[in-house]
Amino acid sequence: MVSKHPIAIDPVGYVKTEAVGDQIKDKTRTSEIIIDPKLQFALDGITDYSHIYVLFWLHEIPQEKRATLKVHPRGRSDMPLVGVFAARTNLHPNPIGLTLVELVKVEGNVLTVRGLDAFNGTPVLDIKPFDSWDIAKEPRVPRWWLKLEEEKQKKL
Amino acid sequence: MVSKHPIAIDPVGYVKTEAVGDQIKDKTRTSEIIIDPKLQFALDGITDYSHIYVLFWLHEIPQEKRATLKVHPRGRSDMPLVGVFAARTNLHPNPIGLTLVELVKVEGNVLTVRGLDAFNGTPVLDIKPFDSWDIAKEPRVPRWWLKLEEEKQKKL
Repeated sequence: MVSKHPIAIDPVGYVKTEAVGDQIKDKTRTSEIIIDPKLQFALDGITDYSHIYVLFWLHEIPQEKRATLKVHPRGRSDMPLVGVFAARTNLHPNPIGLTLVELVKVEGNVLTVRGLDAFNGTPVLDIKPFDSWDIAKEPRVPRWWLKLEEEKQKKL
Repeated sequence: MVSKHPIAIDPVGYVKTEAVGDQIKDKTRTSEIIIDPKLQFALDGITDYSHIYVLFWLHEIPQEKRATLKVHPRGRSDMPLVGVFAARTNLHPNPIGLTLVELVKVEGNVLTVRGLDAFNGTPVLDIKPFDSWDIAKEPRVPRWWLKLEEEKQKKL
């Protein structure tokens, strides 16, 4: 009973960054989000929040890759093969990015954020303020996730 | 420089719930998410997570309401008038819902979740597992938000 009519979404803005390739994964980097000037007043009050969610459209993912149903997390063959909905891979049927970022400043229709893993020109679908209702205090995660996290901590 | 071509998104599933009206705000209620059977294998491994994000399309919001730029949070006139991007109102230019829910169980292509504030038949755009990278530990929020939260705690 899933509708046969696709939903048409106009982006509310786009990402501006000098980061290329893996540089976008650097959580210390800042990027800009240029909001459609018609929507500038919709930003009023957003600087009262320290963090926001950015929802964006991974426009560089080729259509055929969106048919992927299973992945090895981080592309690593030593990790189990899991469904794409069980990982934060960019190969979801609808390649919507969701990233929690730090809001650094807002000038007019331009937001500066820290930690956004999106390429230059990425269409932004929505932004939402983050509050404590968005926190699950002790989330349970897979063992492979904990292993990857442990490796990351050792590198720091 | 926002693209003039809308992005076409096919839902990956839909919400099934008996809750009507304000009942959907009850965080203790469970709902089902019926995933397109073609995508069932994409769910493999998701039960290793305790919590998931659900991204959905608020299909009952009339087009004209999406032009709203400012709101009083919770529709309360004693709250300041803020931009829609500075509140978790459903009147965003793109009415995409984002809710963190508890994953109760998965049977075939049907997920049972607790705390999803979406009406019966709501198209689901994506689901994503929640992990500790999705947590900002001490988020700063507006004073009006803290006031509403304090009122809520008093009622409990």
